Amino acid sequence: MERFLAACQRQKVDTTPIWLMRQAGRYMEAYRNLREKYTILEIIKTPELACEVTMQPLKAFDLDAAIIFADILPPLEGMGLQLSFSKGEGPVIHNPVRTRADVEALRMPEPEESLWFTLQAIALVRRELASRGLPLIGFSGAPFTLASYAIEGGGSSNYLHTKCLLMSDPETWHLLMRKLSEVVGRYLLAQARAGAQALQLFDSWAGCLSPEDYRAHVLPYSRRAIEIASQGQVPIIHFSTHTSGMLDLIKEAGGDVIGIDWRITLEHAWSLVGEEKAIQGNLDPVALFAPWDSLKKRAQQILDQGTGRPGYIFNLGHGILPQTPVSNVQRLVDFVHEYRAQGV
Amino acid sequence: MERFLAACQRQKVDTTPIWLMRQAGRYMEAYRNLREKYTILEIIKTPELACEVTMQPLKAFDLDAAIIFADILPPLEGMGLQLSFSKGEGPVIHNPVRTRADVEALRMPEPEESLWFTLQAIALVRRELASRGLPLIGFSGAPFTLASYAIEGGGSSNYLHTKCLLMSDPETWHLLMRKLSEVVGRYLLAQARAGAQALQLFDSWAGCLSPEDYRAHVLPYSRRAIEIASQGQVPIIHFSTHTSGMLDLIKEAGGDVIGIDWRITLEHAWSLVGEEKAIQGNLDPVALFAPWDSLKKRAQQILDQGTGRPGYIFNLGHGILPQTPVSNVQRLVDFVHEYRAQGV
Repeated sequence: MERFLAACQRQKVDTTPIWLMRQAGRYMEAYRNLREKYTILEIIKTPELACEVTMQPLKAFDLDAAIIFADILPPLEGMGLQLSFSKGEGPVIHNPVRTRADVEALRMPEPEESLWFTLQAIALVRRELASRGLPLIGFSGAPFTLASYAIEGGGSSNYLHTKCLLMSDPETWHLLMRKLSEVVGRYLLAQARAGAQALQLFDSWAGCLSPEDYRAHVLPYSRRAIEIASQGQVPIIHFSTHTSGMLDLIKEAGGDVIGIDWRITLEHAWSLVGEEKAIQGNLDPVALFAPWDSLKKRAQQILDQGTGRPGYIFNLGHGILPQTPVSNVQRLVDFVHEYRAQGV
Repeated sequence: MERFLAACQRQKVDTTPIWLMRQAGRYMEAYRNLREKYTILEIIKTPELACEVTMQPLKAFDLDAAIIFADILPPLEGMGLQLSFSKGEGPVIHNPVRTRADVEALRMPEPEESLWFTLQAIALVRRELASRGLPLIGFSGAPFTLASYAIEGGGSSNYLHTKCLLMSDPETWHLLMRKLSEVVGRYLLAQARAGAQALQLFDSWAGCLSPEDYRAHVLPYSRRAIEIASQGQVPIIHFSTHTSGMLDLIKEAGGDVIGIDWRITLEHAWSLVGEEKAIQGNLDPVALFAPWDSLKKRAQQILDQGTGRPGYIFNLGHGILPQTPVSNVQRLVDFVHEYRAQGV
């Protein structure tokens, strides 16, 4: 079995697997060149281009998994939201969800209808990867992170609209989350059926909540999405950031692998989620900007905590940054593979 | 002894003390009226105005402490940085610190020389407060948070420049942090000598670091600042956000009271920092926007964890937001005082 998939299932591996969140991205020249001709949404919605971009980092680095080139937000388009990516400002939703009527109006199309392009891209990438013996990861935004974008209409510093809806109109909130958990779950399941061999649920924004609010207003819906997705019989990675104080709840919501950021040591995180889960992540993406010795020391600190037991996947704690030096990515990938290759 | 100071020292209190970070601020009409005539820096640098603003929330609500109206950044001005507050964009430093030479050029003036206005405002407020029997809190930005502002030149989403300096040029980093810890420590000490009866160190940005980076590059300097400040013989509150994964290190750096955000339960936080520390905080500032029943439930959840033992101070997990409804502030303050008033 591929090293990455084996680690997801906490099986023995020959060395630590590594992939990088947002590994197909602006730090790569090949990607920047393509982005001069196409917008992000054009690439995502053209299976051949999405496939090409997905493959770019695999051609450049010895990574252990591909992740389909897509975005966490397109599932919202099928539900009726108008999405665009403004230059440098990130995603904007032009008709944010604020009222009961807005939530009721949200459609719940089948992923084969509204997200066919990503499903088709997955099939294309699987064909390309077959000869390389590398697995492909599919993904979706988690219900809460999608709800936040849908409600705020874009990025947010304090999630005022989202939390106000959650706190002041729990019924509307729960209706929204019920819809999102179904859409997300079915989308993930469809990706597994299209060929994705692992799935990642991105709850990048869950960390803006208190543990109590997460438990009452988010956990049941992440769990529901994961339940639906798990019919696909592939490992599920449950990723979040800023959740060091509630990793026990993230684990409770589900997933075979818990994705963590760098704001907690790997060891501490593992003590919170328990031995029965694999863990992914933990390097500060900014460490890739450091001189090699400094980067190496930080990678080593993590590997020393991760390689003693089965089920560790090296990754960053969040997406790789656009200005990241490529040479450090190269060295990091090789270092992770070489480090204690025998002992794992 | 005043209820707030007693709780700082983990002594018995008649009921839970409460104050709110940024309690003098834009959510109050009296403050907005004054801000139509003066800039933030004008208010801070005119002791009579700073005193007036400090007193505004105490006249409106039954709070248990005043906090001097100031900002975390003015200590940087005395060191040679040019600070301004741009409308709606937050603070800007026009000559950010990026090189060894920049760090070497930083001056270390005595607080009586560069921050006389805040020291004088403290003396004025103490006189006003004497009749009310309320204590006054002084404060400063912590060395890391000041370093981040000095290096980034303002707010930041990934602290790239700060972390790059820390990771790539530790010597320059340590020189900068040595200077900042002295400036911060002496400023805090001067505030205690001017009349502040408690001191808060704001390390609002420490949570962008990994625990290892915090330990190696920040902890010794926060500890140094706290050591100097503790000559003032008043309780010290050590506040940070996004540090749920390293509260043990925040505690290790020092402080009598550990200030926490809402991303961890009070109970879990207390288990990490230990019984010998008091704890302050924990309510999500956005909860103040909720209907009263919903806000009350959240306050109650916290009080149920905080009132069982000595040393709990009710507060938000970060500053109160500008659009916060005043009526909820009023009800919250009264509710905290009434809740289990006998049992504490």
